[in-house]
Amino acid sequence: MSQPVPTTLADITALLHKDLPLTRAMGVQLTQWNGATVALTAPLAPNHNHTDTAFGGSISSLSILAGYTLLFLLLRDRGVHAHLLIQKSTTDFLRPIDTELTATADLPAASLVEDFFAMLAQKRRARLTVESRILAQGALAATHTGLYVAILN
Amino acid sequence: MSQPVPTTLADITALLHKDLPLTRAMGVQLTQWNGATVALTAPLAPNHNHTDTAFGGSISSLSILAGYTLLFLLLRDRGVHAHLLIQKSTTDFLRPIDTELTATADLPAASLVEDFFAMLAQKRRARLTVESRILAQGALAATHTGLYVAILN
Repeated sequence: MSQPVPTTLADITALLHKDLPLTRAMGVQLTQWNGATVALTAPLAPNHNHTDTAFGGSISSLSILAGYTLLFLLLRDRGVHAHLLIQKSTTDFLRPIDTELTATADLPAASLVEDFFAMLAQKRRARLTVESRILAQGALAATHTGLYVAILN
Repeated sequence: MSQPVPTTLADITALLHKDLPLTRAMGVQLTQWNGATVALTAPLAPNHNHTDTAFGGSISSLSILAGYTLLFLLLRDRGVHAHLLIQKSTTDFLRPIDTELTATADLPAASLVEDFFAMLAQKRRARLTVESRILAQGALAATHTGLYVAILN
């Protein structure tokens, strides 16, 4: 490995803050990665809008980031060095959020994940759709669908 | 009017920074409003990702903001006091952006705008879809469709 692999939630949070400075401004913290589910949180204060609920851009950004981080950690755990990009992002805003935001993303079905890795090995490029959700005080507040592409380094 | 209405691009930029602190962190500036088209810019530095191109969350946020600002200024110019929310946001990322970002949004067709105001007057609540585009060095880099809802105060 050319670079040390971050291993703790705090290390990965620090990497996100370094690579994506907007995540620092948003106060994003990685709070869970168990090999299948990622959870990220952000406080309301830096992400509020004119009504003291969460800005739609913060909700979309945290959702995009949840899917991105899931794939980043999945590739890392398999020792695959690839560049990740988002191609399409759709957010449905279900209700205003007036508390801390939590975004979670789960691995897609195992067969889709294996197809993704097989395509990546064969074509050096593969796409995967990842769903994420924004929760506020445990209630579903937004849903997100992200189409990501990985390109082998 | 209970509050002074911001009139210059700098005044409206200052209002965005105050109401939506993430726009300040992103370095967003309103650069155009002519009654039909809004343009917003943001520098790359606070919005970059791990490859020194623009973070997808910044692209989505600036796109959402372009449509939001267009409707905010349209309502302001007509003296209509309404609360604006985004209900659905879809961004297509067409190519990486390694320069300043510009987001533009144009008024929808006049008949749709008039239907929106008629519905708002009648039902106190109306929805409108606004398309926005992200340009980088004049080339189209992302497209966005936002569904916004206005609720009379």
